[in-house]
Amino acid sequence: MSAPVFAPVTPTSGEIDSGWHRLPLRVIYADTDAGGVVYHANYLGFAERARTEMLRAVGIVPQKLYDEDGTLFVVRSAELDYRAPARLDDALEVRSRVTKFGGASLEIEQQVLRWEHTDSRHLVTILVRLVCVDPQFNPQRVPDKVRVACAPFHHVTQSSGE
Amino acid sequence: MSAPVFAPVTPTSGEIDSGWHRLPLRVIYADTDAGGVVYHANYLGFAERARTEMLRAVGIVPQKLYDEDGTLFVVRSAELDYRAPARLDDALEVRSRVTKFGGASLEIEQQVLRWEHTDSRHLVTILVRLVCVDPQFNPQRVPDKVRVACAPFHHVTQSSGE
Amino acid sequence: MSAPVFAPVTPTSGEIDSGWHRLPLRVIYADTDAGGVVYHANYLGFAERARTEMLRAVGIVPQKLYDEDGTLFVVRSAELDYRAPARLDDALEVRSRVTKFGGASLEIEQQVLRWEHTDSRHLVTILVRLVCVDPQFNPQRVPDKVRVACAPFHHVTQSSGE
Amino acid sequence: MSAPVFAPVTPTSGEIDSGWHRLPLRVIYADTDAGGVVYHANYLGFAERARTEMLRAVGIVPQKLYDEDGTLFVVRSAELDYRAPARLDDALEVRSRVTKFGGASLEIEQQVLRWEHTDSRHLVTILVRLVCVDPQFNPQRVPDKVRVACAPFHHVTQSSGE
Repeated sequence: MSAPVFAPVTPTSGEIDSGWHRLPLRVIYADTDAGGVVYHANYLGFAERARTEMLRAVGIVPQKLYDEDGTLFVVRSAELDYRAPARLDDALEVRSRVTKFGGASLEIEQQVLRWEHTDSRHLVTILVRLVCVDPQFNPQRVPDKVRVACAPFHHVTQSSGE
Repeated sequence: MSAPVFAPVTPTSGEIDSGWHRLPLRVIYADTDAGGVVYHANYLGFAERARTEMLRAVGIVPQKLYDEDGTLFVVRSAELDYRAPARLDDALEVRSRVTKFGGASLEIEQQVLRWEHTDSRHLVTILVRLVCVDPQFNPQRVPDKVRVACAPFHHVTQSSGE
Repeated sequence: MSAPVFAPVTPTSGEIDSGWHRLPLRVIYADTDAGGVVYHANYLGFAERARTEMLRAVGIVPQKLYDEDGTLFVVRSAELDYRAPARLDDALEVRSRVTKFGGASLEIEQQVLRWEHTDSRHLVTILVRLVCVDPQFNPQRVPDKVRVACAPFHHVTQSSGE
Repeated sequence: MSAPVFAPVTPTSGEIDSGWHRLPLRVIYADTDAGGVVYHANYLGFAERARTEMLRAVGIVPQKLYDEDGTLFVVRSAELDYRAPARLDDALEVRSRVTKFGGASLEIEQQVLRWEHTDSRHLVTILVRLVCVDPQFNPQRVPDKVRVACAPFHHVTQSSGE
C-alpha cells in the first residue's frame, strides 16, 4: 500500500480590515497559568505573532528582510494594559496597526479581544515601539519598502498632524 | 465617524486527511533560541496545540469535557525524537493520530514537518501518552464519546491486532 | 549498597540590600531567541520570579496568602524599557522595590542588570502595577501584613510626599 | 546623597553530591498552567537549566565551549515520565548525572523531586541524549575536557560493562 500524498497546508497570515490587521488565536494550556487565565507575559508572544503576520500579509518577511537588507526589528519598549483575562479555549483576536513611523522606529498599537459568537470583548492593549537595527544592533533607517507596505494598516491620527 | 463593525475571526482547527489530523503553524521568534533554531521544549507546545485542535475538529473541547464529564487529559509520558531543526519563519505542519486506546489512556503519534513549496521534510517525532483523570487527578475511563469522535484519526496497527 | 541520603536543597530567595530586593539569575537557551539575545517577553517572567522571591524573603508566600486571606495579586499593567540585550550565559540580577501602595494596588519598580566581574550594566527597566483581588477577581484591599512586610524595600519618593 | 554600592550577586550552580548534580528551583506562575500544575513542557526547561549548571559546576560553559572548541550540544532525543505533578511555590530539585558517553553523544538522566521539609518525592524522570555538533550542526567528537570534567557525576552502570 502506498503512502498517502499530502498537499501543503499553510498557516494563516490573518486579514486586513478597516485599517487593522486581524489574527485569530486559540488559547491552549501552554498559554495559561495556575490562576486559570493566560499568563500575563504570554500576551507579548501573541503580539509578536500578530506583528509578524501583519508584515507577512503585505510581503515583509523577517528572515528575508534580514538577508536582503541587513535589517531587523527589535523591541525598544512595550506597554501592556490588562483589562480582563483570557481563559483556556478562548477564541482570541489580535488586532494591530502602525500608529507612527519615526526615522528608525515604528510604533504599533495592538489589542487582544475575545470573541463569543458575534460579540467581542477588549481584553488587553499593547503598545510596542520597535527599532530598526543592523546586524550589529545599530539603529538603521526603516526601509522604504516597509513604510510603503504598511500603508493598509498605518493609522494617521488627525490631531497630531502626522 | 462611527467605528467599523468587525465580523468574528476564528482560529483554524486544521483538517483531517488520510487518517491524520493536520495543523499548520508558523515559527516566530518566541519559538526559537540562541542556536537559531526552535527550542527543543517548544515542540511539546506545538504538539499540545495540535492535539487540542484535533479533538476540537471532531467536537471534543477540553473545558466543555471538564465541565460536562468531570474529565481532563494529563500527559503521562512523552518521547521526542529530533531529526532536524526548524527555524524562524518556517511553515510547519503538525500531523497527529491516535495509535492506541487503553481503558483510561490514549496514545498519540505526532510528527512535525516543514513545508517548502510542495515538499515536506519530517523534523520531529513525538509520542505522547495521555491519561484521562477526574478533577482529583484519579484515573478515569476515557469517555465513549471521545473514542467514537476519534475514529477519523484512530490508526489501528495490524500487527498488534488491536 | 544502600542509596545515598540527601539533605534538602533550597532555592534562593535573594537578598535585601539598601532598600532593594536582589535576585541573581542565569540566562539559558530557554530564555533566548534566534536573535541571539533574551526574548523580550521573558523579562516579564524574570520579573515575576523576582517579585515572588521579594515577598517570600519577608514571609509573604502566594499560595499561603491565597489560602489564608483569599487574596491574590494580578498584573494590571506593565511597562518595559529595553536598553541593552542580555545573552546566553549572562549572570543577571533583578533588582526590585515597591514604589507605591494604593488601596488595592501596589507599584513595583524592577531593573534587570548584567554583572561582569564587579561591574553591572542596567539592561531593562520594568514597572508593574499589581492589583489585589479576591478569588472572583474583585479588587480587595492590600492586606496590612503585606504593607508591613514590604517596609524593607518600600521606597517613598520625597517629591510626591507619599 | 550618593547611590548605594552593590556587590555582585551570583546565580547558584548547584552542588555535586554522591555522584549527582543537584539544582534547587522554585515554581512560579510562569511555570504553571490552568490545570494548577507545572505545564508538562516546562520540565524540559528545568532540565536544560540543571544540565547547564551541572557543566558550569565543573568549568564547562556553553558559550566558551562554542568559542574555543567550535562545539555545541544539541538535544537529539528526550523521554519524559511524569509520575506526579509539581505545583505553585513548590521547592523542587533537579538531580542530574551522565549515564553514557558515546563518541559524539552524551546520555543524561535527570530527576525532578519536590522537597517538603526533609522529605523528597520523585515527580518526573527525564532521559536526554545530547549530540555534540560543530557550528554547521555536523556531529563532532565530545571534547576530552568534557569527558574528564564530568567524572564527578558520570555514573557507570555495572551490568552494561561500560
